[in-house]
Amino acid sequence: MTLPVSEELIAGANAREINALEDEYAALGRKLERSGIAIDAVKDRVAGFSVAVPTWGAGRGGTRFAKFPVPGEPTNIHEKLEDCAVINQLSRMTPRVSPHFPWDTVSDYKALREEAAELGLGFDAVNSNTFQDQPGQVQSYATGSLASTVAATRRQAVEHNIECIEFGRQLGSTDLTVWVGDGTNFPGQQDLARSLDRYLEAAAEIYAALPGDWRMLIEHKMFEPAFYSTVISDWGSSILAAQELGPKAKCLVDLGHHAPNTNIEQIVARLHRFGKLGGFHFNDSKYGDDDLDSGSINPHQLFLVFNELVEAELNPRDGFNPSYMIDQSHNVTDPIESMISSAETIGACFAKALLVDREALHLAQEANDTMMAFQALRRAYNVDVGPILAKARLEAGGAIDALRAYRESKWRERKAQERKPAGLGAGIV
Amino acid sequence: MTLPVSEELIAGANAREINALEDEYAALGRKLERSGIAIDAVKDRVAGFSVAVPTWGAGRGGTRFAKFPVPGEPTNIHEKLEDCAVINQLSRMTPRVSPHFPWDTVSDYKALREEAAELGLGFDAVNSNTFQDQPGQVQSYATGSLASTVAATRRQAVEHNIECIEFGRQLGSTDLTVWVGDGTNFPGQQDLARSLDRYLEAAAEIYAALPGDWRMLIEHKMFEPAFYSTVISDWGSSILAAQELGPKAKCLVDLGHHAPNTNIEQIVARLHRFGKLGGFHFNDSKYGDDDLDSGSINPHQLFLVFNELVEAELNPRDGFNPSYMIDQSHNVTDPIESMISSAETIGACFAKALLVDREALHLAQEANDTMMAFQALRRAYNVDVGPILAKARLEAGGAIDALRAYRESKWRERKAQERKPAGLGAGIV
Amino acid sequence: MTLPVSEELIAGANAREINALEDEYAALGRKLERSGIAIDAVKDRVAGFSVAVPTWGAGRGGTRFAKFPVPGEPTNIHEKLEDCAVINQLSRMTPRVSPHFPWDTVSDYKALREEAAELGLGFDAVNSNTFQDQPGQVQSYATGSLASTVAATRRQAVEHNIECIEFGRQLGSTDLTVWVGDGTNFPGQQDLARSLDRYLEAAAEIYAALPGDWRMLIEHKMFEPAFYSTVISDWGSSILAAQELGPKAKCLVDLGHHAPNTNIEQIVARLHRFGKLGGFHFNDSKYGDDDLDSGSINPHQLFLVFNELVEAELNPRDGFNPSYMIDQSHNVTDPIESMISSAETIGACFAKALLVDREALHLAQEANDTMMAFQALRRAYNVDVGPILAKARLEAGGAIDALRAYRESKWRERKAQERKPAGLGAGIV
Amino acid sequence: MTLPVSEELIAGANAREINALEDEYAALGRKLERSGIAIDAVKDRVAGFSVAVPTWGAGRGGTRFAKFPVPGEPTNIHEKLEDCAVINQLSRMTPRVSPHFPWDTVSDYKALREEAAELGLGFDAVNSNTFQDQPGQVQSYATGSLASTVAATRRQAVEHNIECIEFGRQLGSTDLTVWVGDGTNFPGQQDLARSLDRYLEAAAEIYAALPGDWRMLIEHKMFEPAFYSTVISDWGSSILAAQELGPKAKCLVDLGHHAPNTNIEQIVARLHRFGKLGGFHFNDSKYGDDDLDSGSINPHQLFLVFNELVEAELNPRDGFNPSYMIDQSHNVTDPIESMISSAETIGACFAKALLVDREALHLAQEANDTMMAFQALRRAYNVDVGPILAKARLEAGGAIDALRAYRESKWRERKAQERKPAGLGAGIV
Repeated sequence: MTLPVSEELIAGANAREINALEDEYAALGRKLERSGIAIDAVKDRVAGFSVAVPTWGAGRGGTRFAKFPVPGEPTNIHEKLEDCAVINQLSRMTPRVSPHFPWDTVSDYKALREEAAELGLGFDAVNSNTFQDQPGQVQSYATGSLASTVAATRRQAVEHNIECIEFGRQLGSTDLTVWVGDGTNFPGQQDLARSLDRYLEAAAEIYAALPGDWRMLIEHKMFEPAFYSTVISDWGSSILAAQELGPKAKCLVDLGHHAPNTNIEQIVARLHRFGKLGGFHFNDSKYGDDDLDSGSINPHQLFLVFNELVEAELNPRDGFNPSYMIDQSHNVTDPIESMISSAETIGACFAKALLVDREALHLAQEANDTMMAFQALRRAYNVDVGPILAKARLEAGGAIDALRAYRESKWRERKAQERKPAGLGAGIV
Repeated sequence: MTLPVSEELIAGANAREINALEDEYAALGRKLERSGIAIDAVKDRVAGFSVAVPTWGAGRGGTRFAKFPVPGEPTNIHEKLEDCAVINQLSRMTPRVSPHFPWDTVSDYKALREEAAELGLGFDAVNSNTFQDQPGQVQSYATGSLASTVAATRRQAVEHNIECIEFGRQLGSTDLTVWVGDGTNFPGQQDLARSLDRYLEAAAEIYAALPGDWRMLIEHKMFEPAFYSTVISDWGSSILAAQELGPKAKCLVDLGHHAPNTNIEQIVARLHRFGKLGGFHFNDSKYGDDDLDSGSINPHQLFLVFNELVEAELNPRDGFNPSYMIDQSHNVTDPIESMISSAETIGACFAKALLVDREALHLAQEANDTMMAFQALRRAYNVDVGPILAKARLEAGGAIDALRAYRESKWRERKAQERKPAGLGAGIV
Repeated sequence: MTLPVSEELIAGANAREINALEDEYAALGRKLERSGIAIDAVKDRVAGFSVAVPTWGAGRGGTRFAKFPVPGEPTNIHEKLEDCAVINQLSRMTPRVSPHFPWDTVSDYKALREEAAELGLGFDAVNSNTFQDQPGQVQSYATGSLASTVAATRRQAVEHNIECIEFGRQLGSTDLTVWVGDGTNFPGQQDLARSLDRYLEAAAEIYAALPGDWRMLIEHKMFEPAFYSTVISDWGSSILAAQELGPKAKCLVDLGHHAPNTNIEQIVARLHRFGKLGGFHFNDSKYGDDDLDSGSINPHQLFLVFNELVEAELNPRDGFNPSYMIDQSHNVTDPIESMISSAETIGACFAKALLVDREALHLAQEANDTMMAFQALRRAYNVDVGPILAKARLEAGGAIDALRAYRESKWRERKAQERKPAGLGAGIV
Repeated sequence: MTLPVSEELIAGANAREINALEDEYAALGRKLERSGIAIDAVKDRVAGFSVAVPTWGAGRGGTRFAKFPVPGEPTNIHEKLEDCAVINQLSRMTPRVSPHFPWDTVSDYKALREEAAELGLGFDAVNSNTFQDQPGQVQSYATGSLASTVAATRRQAVEHNIECIEFGRQLGSTDLTVWVGDGTNFPGQQDLARSLDRYLEAAAEIYAALPGDWRMLIEHKMFEPAFYSTVISDWGSSILAAQELGPKAKCLVDLGHHAPNTNIEQIVARLHRFGKLGGFHFNDSKYGDDDLDSGSINPHQLFLVFNELVEAELNPRDGFNPSYMIDQSHNVTDPIESMISSAETIGACFAKALLVDREALHLAQEANDTMMAFQALRRAYNVDVGPILAKARLEAGGAIDALRAYRESKWRERKAQERKPAGLGAGIV
């Protein structure tokens, strides 16, 4: 394996931080000990936690108004893998990447898998793209894809998904994530019921092509790119579709795809309760599908989601095996920095959820002692778990302060010299 | 049958309106004829349409801050029936009332049924109340009802629902509507998964007590009275619960119980698609469960809901038999006037949905001719269907201008002399 | 003047519709007469009403995910003017276009003005663009524009606005609309107070360059392209900025730029009350700044806005002179059709607002007769004013059924042969 | 002074916690020291911080559906003061109470002031009540109060507010908080502009009665009890009203009174920027004006509000003197526990805001280093400031773990024996 950042640089950076970390870790250990929690056990659970990063997240994102490229951003799958390797090397929490086709199309997937492995990376869920037209594409997705009234378009979309499964098989993936932009901008534009019929029929063809150990992750979204209705608009539509498709179909929760004020952690609990929790696209939002950095707007909500996940793992009912991925649009930051920071935030929420005194919580719930039930969560949320995460990273070969080490590496500056510039983003108003 | 408003008064009022109506009905008939629509056929469909009114809606509603009683408002089920009879006599669209227990408890339900019949009224869905404590009640619903951790409370709530079925059986009802206030105000207050388990277990006991021709209508609500989570918070939770309970369990849609921006008409289409559309509580809202008059805020949304209902009836899949009820809180108007006005608005939306040229709509949808598909709906929405509704009312014995006839009847002024005053509402902040 | 659509075609189309129109107009006239309203007077008011269209609205819009071009769409200002002339020729309600710089930059504005005049068009408010980078631009707007921390960027943005005023002066405009994308995606990214200070300082420089008879229209927006904060996020920020700038600064209301559930018509009343109502960007939305066709989602809200405008005109306080423009993103329709349809919807809402019996309304308001006050609005809203608009169009030389006449003209099909294709829109995720 | 909880009990409780606290405080001190922050200086700032509690918050709140009284809840101002004294004795952060008239009316305000002082309490802002009718009241507020069309009602509301000022003067208050429920439930119910005219005219009469050192705090609210429009619905209306009234009029921010997704911290910054930030009603919400415990739903938002407040204090422009109060509805908890917990959360957010490295923040903002600007806030937010607050409480005579000490005091159980029960809350649907 040849990792992109020099190990000496990481070691040197850690040397400057180690004393402070040891002091904080020890102090936190004593504090947790007083509550009967062994800090090393928590640290080991955190060390075993990981979240995938999307290849497309390595580039600058934008809006319909504009995109502002950052010098040195990657413009092909090989450069994206390199950047993802930096994220994982420093954070030690993102060992898998999630590819998107046709954006990441190559001629030799075996070679791509080896290239990634050499960088310490494996492949996560494969993502299909039937929401935009590619040069030379026979059928346009202007009328939708899996739900289009045009049979040839549905066929093309199904075949593209099946092709994605084949690419994923070669890359070592076992999940296909299906998000479609199908929907309408006008009342009456399409029949709301028949659209779903067509979607389900086409999705069933994809489902039939899944290898035995694969899952199909259905991702719902309230709006955008369609602004009146979307065919899989909410978790209700998603789970009913997953029920119709079969046991390998599960639901994927993107934190930005819900109506305002929605209690997302309850949706997580519901999906788990009915055996259909498939995974997450982590990000944060204030208004719509803002695709902001995970936990940057509402870290408490992210903690409450992980609280449900820890509960679910302890009470697996029909099984518990969610897929975790970051899915953000990095419009104003260096994508590597945003994903390092986001992975840490996600890991911190997991760690805090582990710290919840579940016996106290459940007793208070049973006794309808609302204040003490709330405090059981709040005490855990208030803990600064930074030292636990830093210790886990350090022991795995990462950087205690991953952002600082990244800046010291001058990775982006070097790549700005080496890589060809990304195109100027044109707004689509 | 002895109806409350004098037939002479109605006849006199209609005499003043009839010429204008005939002119408008004829002109509209010519217009529709040019589109190949026979106005009398539409009028006959409208004449066959009805919507129930809730007994509690006959009284002034209020908020946690205050209630401002209106002189002459009813304070018992007998007075409420009288007021509901006025609504139906004038509008000829609300022949059934929906009772609420224990608010409408009487000693002799057979007598109550006869009393109603004498007023031209039958009974619609029965509503249970497990969201507030009654004097002398053994278990408090402070911890919830069907989802409470307290077994005796769940039992009490189940038994109350079963008692409601028995009352309803005697009254001629065939639907039980179950809405519970169960939920939480704090993260952690209750386990989100176990709460649903308890709810489902208790609901199954009620379900088991349903007579063979009855349905159980499950009503979801996003928030209020609980402000962090509610046990049946959205249509996804509702339909999954209905699936678990069995074929007699259906979902009820209250137009004010959704997240902001929700596409409610799509939820209607989804519930129908999956065989679980049970009925409606009609009202309107701008912010939350505002319980405003139907269509007063967003009449176009109500039209789009009826557009789905007309589609569903034409394409019944697993059956189509929704229950329709007005459910509003009349805080600033005479409840009789609000329900007369609301029934007319609901009927108008149904009439407009009937006017949609469905062949043109479906052809445009198939051809992805978005503008013409939209215009097919919009042309129907733009029609002033007032004359159709007025004609149907007139022919059924009602008033052409029902609000004006009501005012002329001086019903409320007379009742203000006869009835004992309602209590001054105390704000609960 | 040489208008793009053949007058014979329009005359032929109208000939087929005229009898139906005469019948409907006469019937509506009798109905209104019974309420004491002279239909011709309303028609004349409608004939005097107009709304501008934006040059950029003549092309297909898109989202960050994709744009699907329509064959024959315009790709330069000259083709856009031609399309706008079609809209106005058929609808007779859109005699002015609103240009956007640098998108509509030409070398000779006098010639452009003549070119437009020859097509029956004048120019409305000028729009500046400081939310995206153009090839060769010295300073990037990645850090914002008027509120940027970079002095040279603020200077560039100010100078661009001043240049826009100069272009507009030559075109005959008297309004400059200023919308900036400035804002942040992260808490802390910028200081919320200092950002506004910088904005106000830069805006004051633009204000100082306004000719004596010009206005500066400040457009607020809640979010997008910035997703945590925007510098002029709501009408409160907008009016305070306008107060600081001076009497020529007014506030512009885009119907899609508000928080969910916002009462937009009250904002209109407030801006008028405080002398700062500058104008509108008409469109509709269900979720965010969806830029859907005006009134396609919530036509009643549009009516309520016009109800406030008619009230404001009757009670002008510090003056009443709002600027009206359509601002939509036509992602799934022919832009010409959407703007024809939208103009008709906007005109219809104006016509309905004119029909409100204001004396009855005000008397009911004074008497706290809520139901009758509401019915005063509702009666007007329910009227099908289509015949009034059609008659006004017909008399002005337009088409009774403008959409049908447009389709018969085969304008788009012809342009698809003549014009060079627009580029395939690339999604920016 | 005679405080309600035994000092021995507090001392005993603290003795059990002191060693842990010393360890945690020392560890945190070392951590902060490494960032150049002296922990004792932060603790001293926190010790100087306080927030008022409302007398009505000492009782159980409810909804329009029900209220579930808690045994031992206070039912008069004297019992409420006692409970507030418990909160302050244990938390040492709530030395003032905010009275509400006529709920807290007494015959001798001088005696009440002494009674409070004996309990260690002073008086904060006075609250008037013109949103509900009291027995014997001459004019009903059914038509609104300051904005009512009924002149006698407006007069009554003005006089009540002036009376409140007089009560407050005797109690030592210097602020009058004016929140009115005025608004409408139907489009057209009232004229939106004239309603504000009447409000402003009446408010000016109250303003004129303010003593020289008093402020009038205007509280806006989006909805409830009115559900279509409210007369002071947003911060824009609030600040324009405050501008018209004069320099003693300021704006009060209740965290639950905004549209969904609103950036409240930016509103705080805007109000300060324009010299009108008057104060806060702290609570939290997920859906509407849920009045949940401060920071229980979104503690990060509360931190961001305090971040603006610390910035504002450092950059006072036209002055900085906000009034802080808790305003919650305690529907499912012991109100004393909720206010103890809320005060701690509010204090913690203040402490975290103090920990922000403002030099680093400002430098990063100037440099458009978005990630480091964000991290400057996030690093402070992540700190567990519990030891700082506990130390401050301990030194002031409070309890290290205030909730635990309260439970040990068995206050509520004792009061349940002594006090007469509160009435069963009746739902107003």
